[in-house]
Amino acid sequence: MIQHPDFTAEPWCLRAGALDVNVLAQLESVFALSNGYLGWRGNLDEGEPHGLPGSYLSGVFELHPLPYAEAGFGYPESGQSLINVTNGKLIRLLVDDEPFDIRTGVLRSHELCLDFQSGLLSRRVEWVSPAGRALKLTSRRIISFTQRSVAAVEYEVEVLDAPARVVLQSELIANEPIPAEETDPRGARHLTDVLVGVLNRAEGLRVSLAHLTRRSRLTIAATMDHLVEGPPGSESRAESSPDLGRVSVSAVLQPGQKLRLVKMVAFAWSDSRSLPAVQGHADAALTGAMATGWDELVAEQRRYLDEFWARCDIQIDGDVRLQQAARFALFHTMQAGARVEGVAIPAKGLTGPGYDGHAFWDMESYVLAALTYLIPAAAANTLRWRHDTLPAALTRARQLGLAGATFPWRTIHGEECSGYWPAGVAAFHINADIADAVLRYVNATGDRPFERSIGLDLLVHTARLWASLGYFSGDGSFRIDGVTGPDEYSAVADNNVYTNLMAQRNLTAAADIIARYPERAADLQIGADETATWRRAAVRMFIPFDRALGVHPQSEGFTRHEKWDFENTGADEYPLLLHFPYFDLYRKQVVKQADLVLAMHLRSDAFTAEQKAQNFAYYEALTVRDSSLSSSVQAVIAAEVGQFDLAHDYLTESAFLDLNDTEHNTRDGLHIASLAGIWSVLVAGYGGMRHDESGLAFAPRLPHGVSRMSFGVHLAGGTLRVEVTRTQATYHRTSGPSLQLRHYDTLLSVSAHAPQSRPIRVATAAGMRPVQPAHRSPAHDTGGFRPAPGR
Amino acid sequence: MIQHPDFTAEPWCLRAGALDVNVLAQLESVFALSNGYLGWRGNLDEGEPHGLPGSYLSGVFELHPLPYAEAGFGYPESGQSLINVTNGKLIRLLVDDEPFDIRTGVLRSHELCLDFQSGLLSRRVEWVSPAGRALKLTSRRIISFTQRSVAAVEYEVEVLDAPARVVLQSELIANEPIPAEETDPRGARHLTDVLVGVLNRAEGLRVSLAHLTRRSRLTIAATMDHLVEGPPGSESRAESSPDLGRVSVSAVLQPGQKLRLVKMVAFAWSDSRSLPAVQGHADAALTGAMATGWDELVAEQRRYLDEFWARCDIQIDGDVRLQQAARFALFHTMQAGARVEGVAIPAKGLTGPGYDGHAFWDMESYVLAALTYLIPAAAANTLRWRHDTLPAALTRARQLGLAGATFPWRTIHGEECSGYWPAGVAAFHINADIADAVLRYVNATGDRPFERSIGLDLLVHTARLWASLGYFSGDGSFRIDGVTGPDEYSAVADNNVYTNLMAQRNLTAAADIIARYPERAADLQIGADETATWRRAAVRMFIPFDRALGVHPQSEGFTRHEKWDFENTGADEYPLLLHFPYFDLYRKQVVKQADLVLAMHLRSDAFTAEQKAQNFAYYEALTVRDSSLSSSVQAVIAAEVGQFDLAHDYLTESAFLDLNDTEHNTRDGLHIASLAGIWSVLVAGYGGMRHDESGLAFAPRLPHGVSRMSFGVHLAGGTLRVEVTRTQATYHRTSGPSLQLRHYDTLLSVSAHAPQSRPIRVATAAGMRPVQPAHRSPAHDTGGFRPAPGR
Repeated sequence: MIQHPDFTAEPWCLRAGALDVNVLAQLESVFALSNGYLGWRGNLDEGEPHGLPGSYLSGVFELHPLPYAEAGFGYPESGQSLINVTNGKLIRLLVDDEPFDIRTGVLRSHELCLDFQSGLLSRRVEWVSPAGRALKLTSRRIISFTQRSVAAVEYEVEVLDAPARVVLQSELIANEPIPAEETDPRGARHLTDVLVGVLNRAEGLRVSLAHLTRRSRLTIAATMDHLVEGPPGSESRAESSPDLGRVSVSAVLQPGQKLRLVKMVAFAWSDSRSLPAVQGHADAALTGAMATGWDELVAEQRRYLDEFWARCDIQIDGDVRLQQAARFALFHTMQAGARVEGVAIPAKGLTGPGYDGHAFWDMESYVLAALTYLIPAAAANTLRWRHDTLPAALTRARQLGLAGATFPWRTIHGEECSGYWPAGVAAFHINADIADAVLRYVNATGDRPFERSIGLDLLVHTARLWASLGYFSGDGSFRIDGVTGPDEYSAVADNNVYTNLMAQRNLTAAADIIARYPERAADLQIGADETATWRRAAVRMFIPFDRALGVHPQSEGFTRHEKWDFENTGADEYPLLLHFPYFDLYRKQVVKQADLVLAMHLRSDAFTAEQKAQNFAYYEALTVRDSSLSSSVQAVIAAEVGQFDLAHDYLTESAFLDLNDTEHNTRDGLHIASLAGIWSVLVAGYGGMRHDESGLAFAPRLPHGVSRMSFGVHLAGGTLRVEVTRTQATYHRTSGPSLQLRHYDTLLSVSAHAPQSRPIRVATAAGMRPVQPAHRSPAHDTGGFRPAPGR
Repeated sequence: MIQHPDFTAEPWCLRAGALDVNVLAQLESVFALSNGYLGWRGNLDEGEPHGLPGSYLSGVFELHPLPYAEAGFGYPESGQSLINVTNGKLIRLLVDDEPFDIRTGVLRSHELCLDFQSGLLSRRVEWVSPAGRALKLTSRRIISFTQRSVAAVEYEVEVLDAPARVVLQSELIANEPIPAEETDPRGARHLTDVLVGVLNRAEGLRVSLAHLTRRSRLTIAATMDHLVEGPPGSESRAESSPDLGRVSVSAVLQPGQKLRLVKMVAFAWSDSRSLPAVQGHADAALTGAMATGWDELVAEQRRYLDEFWARCDIQIDGDVRLQQAARFALFHTMQAGARVEGVAIPAKGLTGPGYDGHAFWDMESYVLAALTYLIPAAAANTLRWRHDTLPAALTRARQLGLAGATFPWRTIHGEECSGYWPAGVAAFHINADIADAVLRYVNATGDRPFERSIGLDLLVHTARLWASLGYFSGDGSFRIDGVTGPDEYSAVADNNVYTNLMAQRNLTAAADIIARYPERAADLQIGADETATWRRAAVRMFIPFDRALGVHPQSEGFTRHEKWDFENTGADEYPLLLHFPYFDLYRKQVVKQADLVLAMHLRSDAFTAEQKAQNFAYYEALTVRDSSLSSSVQAVIAAEVGQFDLAHDYLTESAFLDLNDTEHNTRDGLHIASLAGIWSVLVAGYGGMRHDESGLAFAPRLPHGVSRMSFGVHLAGGTLRVEVTRTQATYHRTSGPSLQLRHYDTLLSVSAHAPQSRPIRVATAAGMRPVQPAHRSPAHDTGGFRPAPGR
């Protein structure tokens, strides 16, 4: 039965035609469904075997103490952890009193398929029970994009050879046991027994459970209802207890007869509303879904996705695996953000518990970089969540002795949850990343009401932080000492180029926005002196440069440090953080992830073409990509400096990171930022799209093996579709007002009725292909999961 | 009854003529007795009230897990904590069934006195019980320097007015409750219920208890025996249970009659010997002590101290408080080291549980700096303990990817117990500090067998560490990046001057010692290449210098950083580490404790006189002395650069740090390194003594208010006594072979029969007195404990 679940190459779905229980947890992640509010891992309907059961409601967390061997001032004392909420996916099956379990009997066939066009996860199984009863089972699962509180399962069983008594148990289970905690620090903290039952009720085929989280005091309601179609004589009953809701359906099936169950589940939660209000919310959502019915729920989902794909699809001709990976990435990026309202997008979305369900800077710098051009409302909602957490960020800044806002390095609810300050509070760049996301969103959408309220607040309070964090030194330059940039293999260094450049943009933009909305200056007690200081700090921002080497040091002094001994570092010693102490990583030239190279992407204007090429080559030799946030950025800059083959190799690494489980932690959930990064490679790398204060520009170039690429971006109230072939690029404004853009240096105006085509510029010869550290050249597509040795 | 326990000014004892229960814990620390093997806090005989009960056996610790909010590679997982062992001090008293308790009845008088000449802690009390029985009570307590396992109490009670039945209970108590844990990170972790009873026995008036520590599996035996003198009819009985041994003595006393109890207690422990062996060891020691008898035990102690004071006393004419403080410091420094055999000297000695009973670098750099010249054998024994931990240090270096040995930042048993790496493992200077202590000891004693074995091993393995930690950069200089120097308000910086200079000496000395003992090169697989590399690294060691300011930056780039905003830092915001986050301290110019200034003391040869003056003034304005390790060093350099008044102010701060509880943590034990530092100020500061490879030198200068000072140092097999008046210095070799020394620039040869006197050189005018940060000028002597506000 154990077969390798390599995925078949299909452009519009991800299909596993076999089931390897050794990689079940990874399958559960890639087959996870989510709408950004509710997430279900791709656990089997019957619950077991499982890799890691998971049902998540975004923003539903439990508190736990953060311990320290040696505590320090300002260390957060309380952590937040995304919890596994009431499991509503479960449908157990008994056949003549034998439970259906793929580990018993004979599994004739098993297929899971995630369809990117319908948004359904479907399953087809043929199984023979230990007693010899053969049956066919199909299920389809949906988490609705149109009814955000609602998920549903259609489950159908048919006996094949001989009559059998079949019992279905549809369940809600709270506090289900979770496999023991991992030791990988990138994993999750599994809190147990956090749900305190406060209500359980069964009525007809509707069962409700409500719980309170033990410490964080959130109220969660889960409720389910059912539709049963079976032969005459089928019986049903419902029951409930504090942690279990169950509807049982029993029927005797003749060969060819089917028993079909449609299960609808609705969830609601709140940190402030009463139990009756929350329970009522879930009940109302369920009533609405039952009235909608299964078929219409599926139809709504299809309409939502048709619209999404029409606008956002990326077509790649000539490489069906890459096409599939790109749509997989778009689909999961969309899932993570579709219905994010009042909550953050965790690093793993709602596909797993990795990183405790925390949101980090990559939400703004990677996920929103794509969502802004795919689903602008999702970007706005995410930034509104940041804005909601402003009081906590203002308080945190006061506690740290700083002005303005200090947003948390990792959080669910807004309070800092990082227990390691050199890579937590010291990574102040997150504040500029938030500001940058605001600018990107406003630049793309022209959303003035958002800019005037949400955007302005975020820009001003982060600018105030920079003004207080840095200082004017004796020579008049503005310096920011002792901070950590994106690269976590260096920390607490002076004048990190990425941080200083992003802070520079932040300060200028804050002064600019106050100039545009002078009436808001009074609310925020901003005088002319303050904005003048911001501008002066921006103008005098110190950007170190190593003249001897002709490159930018990542931080001041970086290029003086000893280089990591890559030659004597074994392939099995990566990721380095699991094999070497921080002190050794920090003091040497070794880069976990794009830092200076990311600065060259996001602050393209601050570097000459020659600097970009020199810097890129220098940092390629030092960058080990122990973070999933690196390869997509390296691909974008590789393409920009003319290293197309290398760019494509990095795209391949990015594209298959989760599909190949390259980092051996896909079990804990998908790397949403890396998936969003694939969009960046295709659009910013191959499309050469840049979009900032100076306008919209493209410099398209196709990689080897791709004959044609087409992508859509949503901006300025409509969609622009860009089609690139080997010889020309065509810009087609499929909706919205006409648009100015640059094709290389040529200014074009594109309107809805007049697509414009222009030739692709022949690439000038780039230098030698930069070399990566030993064992760290880009990973190839291995075609599916390969279990890690010894894991 | 509550009176302020200001100490009376007496040259040869510390006397508290009143008892303020609010500062009981501080009194228990200053009145602690210890011989370096066994330590008893100055708890009242009757046990309660207490500040913090404490009985310690050096090296007896319990293990506990070290937790991390976010763990990292190489973080120590297990901590070690000095434990409160079986309490053998207790003697309870009942008078007509009422327990003697100073909080009840009327306390007519209460006096505690620690006599530096006899080494006894004596107590005199007159008390009237609530029922009106007046009595006089005297006790004397000793921890023997001559019989290291033995402590004893002589307890005498007399009724004054009317007959009374008196019962004495002499106890051994294990697992006694300890007041709740503190939150001050400098405090102690109080582990409870760590002793598992494995034996209890009562026979005659002898009672024994033995325990096993729960996790660290050490066997501890405590045994006591008694001598009773009372009126006819006195009765005694003994009993034992796992955690309690008790001997009760009962008598009816007529007015003027006395009941006298002598209690002898012996302790033994082992991590390897069996229970019978350990118990036998304690029994044998007790038998020896009982045979010796109280009077002879006291006489032995007196002879030990007579010899000590004859050799080591420092006489200060003209300031009796300072005289008293100096002898208090000498006495406790001696107590901490007297019988250290196979164990370390904890930061608090055996006077309290502060810092978990760990030994740090200040053991070598402060405590041994004095002990080497006071009790050379104690210095040798302490370094032998370091040598014993070499296997753990070699293993730790391997774990961290380094060559040679990495000694732990804090430990009891040799394994790293620091849970905060930026101020733990990164503080690599401890390895050079150990090497420096070896060089100091060998230089002072000429102990060749020690040098050839212990010393050579320590020098070689630390040199190997430096060679692997640093690197030769492109310009040929040898650099050591990413380390933390003594100043804990900066961390993980490049080319810390202190570290680099100390490593330089370490490397050179290792190469030199191998040249002296070439036969040992083979054992250690040292080729000519390796020693050549050490010498090259030493010669090319990079020492940053800021030409613009004309000062040495503490670490590379330090003088470029923003200065701390001292003006807006309140007096109540010190120590800064309790009020500001590390990231803010680290990135600004603010110095917790002498770092560059300590380098100028220990590597005096590496700085010109002008640099010393310039550097001293620069760092004075930045140094807040939030560590007790700072003021003594600042005093020494202040004296050297001619800032005599400032030197004397710093001496005052050092001298009364514990006697005034200046840092508000004397309750957790005395600051042994700071006490040893007082010796350094007097000898190296006022005596101007320097002793290194280039020989022995003095440059004496007396402070205001002192008319004459005399001190003795033990070196080269004998004692040199130096007497300094306002006009001349006299060098008297009271024992040992003749000695070469420099008086200023004059070379003298001093032999036993020919004291040499030379005139004091008139001080040249120094510059302006350097200014300290606001609120941080040196602390004055307040005359005793002043409870901290709100503590």
